[in-house]
Amino acid sequence: MNQSQLLETIRAKRSFLCIGLDPDPARIPAHLGTGAEAVLAFNLAIIEATSDLAVAYKPNLAFYEALGALGHAVLAATLAAIPEHCLSIADGKRGDIGNTAERYAAAAFDELNADAITLAPYMGRDSVEPFLAYKDKWSILLAATSNPSALDFEFHGSPPLYEQVLRTSQSWPGAERLMYVVGATRPELVERCRAIAPNHFFLVPGVGAQGGNLADICEAGWAAQLAGGLIVNVGRSVLYASSGEGFAEAARAEALKIQEQMAAELDRRA
Amino acid sequence: MNQSQLLETIRAKRSFLCIGLDPDPARIPAHLGTGAEAVLAFNLAIIEATSDLAVAYKPNLAFYEALGALGHAVLAATLAAIPEHCLSIADGKRGDIGNTAERYAAAAFDELNADAITLAPYMGRDSVEPFLAYKDKWSILLAATSNPSALDFEFHGSPPLYEQVLRTSQSWPGAERLMYVVGATRPELVERCRAIAPNHFFLVPGVGAQGGNLADICEAGWAAQLAGGLIVNVGRSVLYASSGEGFAEAARAEALKIQEQMAAELDRRA
Repeated sequence: MNQSQLLETIRAKRSFLCIGLDPDPARIPAHLGTGAEAVLAFNLAIIEATSDLAVAYKPNLAFYEALGALGHAVLAATLAAIPEHCLSIADGKRGDIGNTAERYAAAAFDELNADAITLAPYMGRDSVEPFLAYKDKWSILLAATSNPSALDFEFHGSPPLYEQVLRTSQSWPGAERLMYVVGATRPELVERCRAIAPNHFFLVPGVGAQGGNLADICEAGWAAQLAGGLIVNVGRSVLYASSGEGFAEAARAEALKIQEQMAAELDRRA
Repeated sequence: MNQSQLLETIRAKRSFLCIGLDPDPARIPAHLGTGAEAVLAFNLAIIEATSDLAVAYKPNLAFYEALGALGHAVLAATLAAIPEHCLSIADGKRGDIGNTAERYAAAAFDELNADAITLAPYMGRDSVEPFLAYKDKWSILLAATSNPSALDFEFHGSPPLYEQVLRTSQSWPGAERLMYVVGATRPELVERCRAIAPNHFFLVPGVGAQGGNLADICEAGWAAQLAGGLIVNVGRSVLYASSGEGFAEAARAEALKIQEQMAAELDRRA
């Protein structure tokens, strides 16, 4: 999915919602059974119930790796079930030297056919370049994250490290296919990141369970020429809206509430 | 494997060699065939030929993920073939928020039963703590890596970021089970890291193909109370010592050369 297709789907659905597919086996509705099959059935039902409301899905690879031998098959089937009009994001936060990064890129983009992957910037440019070499794929680099201990290292130095990551990486070849992870729990940071990277999409986790507020994020990070330039991820509040047989309808109702807020933001800022 | 067992195996084998199991399908001897089965046969032969000379094996997870559906089985069988007297290191450079880090820890330590995992520090303490909670496992945090673009961010700020990582992380609960990745290509950095973290093992990549020199690394980073405190990783020069039917014997001969240098360092510095 290229940028014009992404803008088109945002405008058509009046949504910039990403649903985080991080299925916790302990929270999957009992009637689906247990184990890897239950996880897959859960994911497929969530995708089917919400794909007209969401512009992206983001399976976090840790939740699939923890399933052991069946994890890869569940992940592959989940990614395959994400419709073409939604961005599929392999959330792996990978980062390794060049020849290894090529293997990670092959795993995510060739093997699993994800549209995007999240990457950790610690090791620098040569750990990201092999991903940027894919012309029709997105690389989403961690900048300022939503977790409490983001303060340990992401703010190190002056200017803080996350600003250095945003500035330096924009000069890399293929940087037009970079997005950035910017957490929702600190709106002033979203504003700061937008000032430094005005022309890139931000993947914004932390709305909902982690405490971030949608209106604040839009106020702080809106990029009008990118239909907002925000992809806001919501996970647990949608996935676990109900633990009963109506879990998919409950997830849809929750996603619809968020999509309606997003539509209002898009209208107001058009 | 706890610290006293690790020290014991280093002293018994007179070695601190780690062999990086990063099998490139294009470089596996032709007589083994192709695909995932060939990769596994290759790994098993390398381990069998070298396990009296090596104290650790380090499969890099990217090379297994790139194999697709069969990758997990090849990785699991490779890890299972590493003898108990060798440290098995899942080289994944993972790093994510707390509840996700728990899933990664379960994948590496419970599912795959690796002794150790490599981790990226970008997101800070809560991305590492779930790994440190495992009492008999090791977490190996990236500090100063061996790749050229380590300079992009690892040296950001004053003191540089990698020093901040070394200092800060030593205060985390369970830090006695932390090791650090310190690249061999810059011996002055190994010396600097040793001054900051005198009581931790360093996993040192970059000797051989990447240009680092064993004697220089020992001079710079030796910690006598830890039998050197170094685990030196060698990959391609051992794995691809020969592309013929005698590849395992050639790998052994190459590993033996390195082990003999290590024995001399251990004797000299005892």
